[in-house]
Amino acid sequence: MAEYTPPVDDYAFLYGEVFGTDIIARATGGELSADDATEIIAGAGEFAASVLAPLESVGDRVGAQLTDGQVYLPTGFAEAYQAFVDAGWIAAEAPESAGGEGLPGAVRAGLGEIWNASNAAFALCWLLTAGQIHALDAAASDELRETYLTKLVSGQWTGTMNLTEPDAGTDLGAIRTMATPRADGSWGISGQKIFITWGDHDVAENIVHLVLARTPDAPAGAKGLSLFVAPKFLVNDDGTLGDRNAITTVAIEHKLGIHGSPTCVLAYEDATGYLVGEVGGGLAGMFVMMNSARTGMGFQATGIADRAYQQAAGYAAQRLQGAVLDHPAGTPIAEHPDVRRLLLSMASRIFAMRALDVYVGDLFDRDDTALAEFFVPILKGWTTEDAVQITSDGIQVHGGMGFIEETGAAQHYRDARIMPIYEGTTAIQSNDLVGRKVIRNGGATVQQLLGLVDETIAQLRTLEHPVAQRTAERLERAVEASRRATQSLLGFAASPRDVAAISVPYLMLLGTLAGGWMHALTVAAVLAHETEQERDAARLTLADFYGAHHLPRVHALAETVAGGEIG
Amino acid sequence: MAEYTPPVDDYAFLYGEVFGTDIIARATGGELSADDATEIIAGAGEFAASVLAPLESVGDRVGAQLTDGQVYLPTGFAEAYQAFVDAGWIAAEAPESAGGEGLPGAVRAGLGEIWNASNAAFALCWLLTAGQIHALDAAASDELRETYLTKLVSGQWTGTMNLTEPDAGTDLGAIRTMATPRADGSWGISGQKIFITWGDHDVAENIVHLVLARTPDAPAGAKGLSLFVAPKFLVNDDGTLGDRNAITTVAIEHKLGIHGSPTCVLAYEDATGYLVGEVGGGLAGMFVMMNSARTGMGFQATGIADRAYQQAAGYAAQRLQGAVLDHPAGTPIAEHPDVRRLLLSMASRIFAMRALDVYVGDLFDRDDTALAEFFVPILKGWTTEDAVQITSDGIQVHGGMGFIEETGAAQHYRDARIMPIYEGTTAIQSNDLVGRKVIRNGGATVQQLLGLVDETIAQLRTLEHPVAQRTAERLERAVEASRRATQSLLGFAASPRDVAAISVPYLMLLGTLAGGWMHALTVAAVLAHETEQERDAARLTLADFYGAHHLPRVHALAETVAGGEIG
Repeated sequence: MAEYTPPVDDYAFLYGEVFGTDIIARATGGELSADDATEIIAGAGEFAASVLAPLESVGDRVGAQLTDGQVYLPTGFAEAYQAFVDAGWIAAEAPESAGGEGLPGAVRAGLGEIWNASNAAFALCWLLTAGQIHALDAAASDELRETYLTKLVSGQWTGTMNLTEPDAGTDLGAIRTMATPRADGSWGISGQKIFITWGDHDVAENIVHLVLARTPDAPAGAKGLSLFVAPKFLVNDDGTLGDRNAITTVAIEHKLGIHGSPTCVLAYEDATGYLVGEVGGGLAGMFVMMNSARTGMGFQATGIADRAYQQAAGYAAQRLQGAVLDHPAGTPIAEHPDVRRLLLSMASRIFAMRALDVYVGDLFDRDDTALAEFFVPILKGWTTEDAVQITSDGIQVHGGMGFIEETGAAQHYRDARIMPIYEGTTAIQSNDLVGRKVIRNGGATVQQLLGLVDETIAQLRTLEHPVAQRTAERLERAVEASRRATQSLLGFAASPRDVAAISVPYLMLLGTLAGGWMHALTVAAVLAHETEQERDAARLTLADFYGAHHLPRVHALAETVAGGEIG
Repeated sequence: MAEYTPPVDDYAFLYGEVFGTDIIARATGGELSADDATEIIAGAGEFAASVLAPLESVGDRVGAQLTDGQVYLPTGFAEAYQAFVDAGWIAAEAPESAGGEGLPGAVRAGLGEIWNASNAAFALCWLLTAGQIHALDAAASDELRETYLTKLVSGQWTGTMNLTEPDAGTDLGAIRTMATPRADGSWGISGQKIFITWGDHDVAENIVHLVLARTPDAPAGAKGLSLFVAPKFLVNDDGTLGDRNAITTVAIEHKLGIHGSPTCVLAYEDATGYLVGEVGGGLAGMFVMMNSARTGMGFQATGIADRAYQQAAGYAAQRLQGAVLDHPAGTPIAEHPDVRRLLLSMASRIFAMRALDVYVGDLFDRDDTALAEFFVPILKGWTTEDAVQITSDGIQVHGGMGFIEETGAAQHYRDARIMPIYEGTTAIQSNDLVGRKVIRNGGATVQQLLGLVDETIAQLRTLEHPVAQRTAERLERAVEASRRATQSLLGFAASPRDVAAISVPYLMLLGTLAGGWMHALTVAAVLAHETEQERDAARLTLADFYGAHHLPRVHALAETVAGGEIG
């Protein structure tokens, strides 16, 4: 497994330049600057490279183990978790209202990428805990905040999200786990939950499960669901830990990847839980956590993809192969045209993802909720689908060595494959996008987005540089295709099967377009430099490459969208 | 692991109808008919489903093991191999000149798919043995034919291909293994070969290695290479087995997939070998085997992809999820629009690959060597790249269960990933295509191909059916884009870096177009039916889906090709 180098320069550039202003200063009213945020990123990167990255390979090889009802992580994970907490990286995620640092979303995007790039399996523990912090901060009573939220923010306990059951995956309305009220105000929870990420482990003293369950006489379907916290160990009135709650880890899954992240089957047998929010308000409460987790998947996609890229680029720089074309024998394969194509293909997508992570974080920071929430399913769907392909390209760069597990490239390909599935499949994201966020308002938010892209195109038209001109021309055609595709989609509004049959291609179209827009903003920012900076030429090449190799997919996808359901 | 159902109906249709005539009767001068060939396919399918498919999962879980210098396959593999030989399936691959059955290439394409679909790891043993049979049939002396070829055709011994060395992968000119002549006419071979598929095993009594090595005073580079056979056990004059040759299995690789196929590091220490063909003619001789293996990768891609599809379709048919859109609770997910999209996406690509496998086999049968060899790199490159994506879609259909190894979907995803790498990476295929087969003749063969597609379009224009009209319209635009892309490519002829930087996109463009053509031929064949047959509607839907979802990629790729190298 190659070492990890955090992309500090990119974050400095994104925070300070790409979006036309210092977005960190804007988000914090001047409390923090882009430079401050970059220092935070650099610190996180140093921690991640030295503490988390070295454990990624052992996490994969040894994985989590279930012994006598207790899950154990490989040697080093508990120490790393403690160091992570001690360095304040959990509190860095938490809002001020919950006792955290209240960092801007744009900064948390960078941190999220770094945790995931250095060790995606470990980062899931952070992701779930962070998501639960946001959910409890939004909905929990003062008592629950005092007992649970403070311990999550301090990192003493970790959090999980308990939704899925054997017959209730995508369809949460089918959840059958029951919560029965008790005389003391607590609830007795019974049922089985599956696919519970970090559902048990030995790296922290307690685990807080956030559980969707059905109350007696609740209406059928999703409206009958309520939200509960249920700890692994019960909490005494003085805050110390009491007996083990009636939650058993029945099994852990034998998975394709992320072996260092224990995926548990949990059995609840009249386990003690506490209601969060109102009875029947479970889905609304869980959506806070899910939105956080879905945005977080953008960071995971960027992180895993970048690690795969670093692995591939490192290999290609040192692997010598003989005479190809005009090169003498012994040229690094990175300079062979097709390997260079693969590396640029990876890097140009990764930069687009990274920029979109920051942009969406900034939208939340600016409370532009409509546009921010419009982007959540695009970010989750598009980045995770593309990241799988990037990890596949990473293997291809290695040739035969990529297929050998010891090389390390294959782990990223295996780890990445879950991303388009968990936290809502790409189909679920696309249903959210087209149903709630496009058709419901007649495409108003899409038009707002396309108008913003038009502004960038107009800006590029004023710049003399050939890359600016090419980027403007390509992006203009891509916007036209996106408008056509949106009209096609709206034309299907009365035909739900047609909509659902082309919603994923439509989501991928908008994601691909957004990536092109991020590169267009980059071109403008680079050309604003009075004297050429070190990475400027490389940034222009990435933008140009994205425009020639990735953006044209918009045209193919627009044609697909226009077809509706086939047969 | 799901059961395996051979696609017998598709082969009957392809052999008898799609290409406008009974191609089997044409290839054999009437000795065999499409019906006869379909019976062979059905028999192979029955054998594969009952003997080979049940071993696929244990091959993955247990894998090949190296103990004290000997490789062992899991229980059942040796028996399966013996049954395979006894049933005549090795002889079925061999030409008549080598004592085999001399079946048409179009039939061998079907057999190849079936072996690979049922058990890709096992099928590699067949693939390499078959390839060596063709190579020795083309180049070996009578003595070598008598001693080695007969034993390969009878299935008593298996064959391997020894090219790669630690510093000579893509660049065969860097091979350093030495062959020194001995007084008795044999050669002493010394060096190390890596990535040797089925390089050692316990399923047959002897193994014949076909080895590229350098002779003393040979010129540098590829021209200095000669070809040798070197057996695992030396062969006595009476044909019985003698001492072990000085070839040691140093290690086997720990791979991402195809665990049932032993990938060996072999050390040659003055091992005894025998020259095949002329000194310095090694690469030409090995190309026979490589061409056979590359065509065979089309069969492997189709097979692995179809097995992934069958797994996904089977799961989607029985997995019930709740109310989605207008469906009542408990509808199989196969009917959910996006799952249906994924399944059609997989199936429409697989059919296109299968048809192209047969078409290229038939080109060889018709001795249309120029067009057949034009298609070899396209078949190898395009089908293997697409197959990886199909296995990824197969996981997606399963949702979370797809990430759990016991489900079986993940194995196909892991197995498939080597295909775009071995037998020459996609970049190597694309260099072969654009260098030798497009630029060298000024695009004449491409024009020949596009002319054939034009004929099919003209035929579809005469048919009233809306799918015929849509298919013709889409294909016509795709042909236009392909002509433009070919002009772009030819325009770069003086700039090798530009050519090499867009050769893979160009190959993918032609593969995607060829897939659309195969579906167009299918539409014409279906509409020629006087009364509707059972599968006709499904075949039209697949063609229509391919035209709406896959063929439009041609336009994106044409834009990419036009850009040349970026930066």
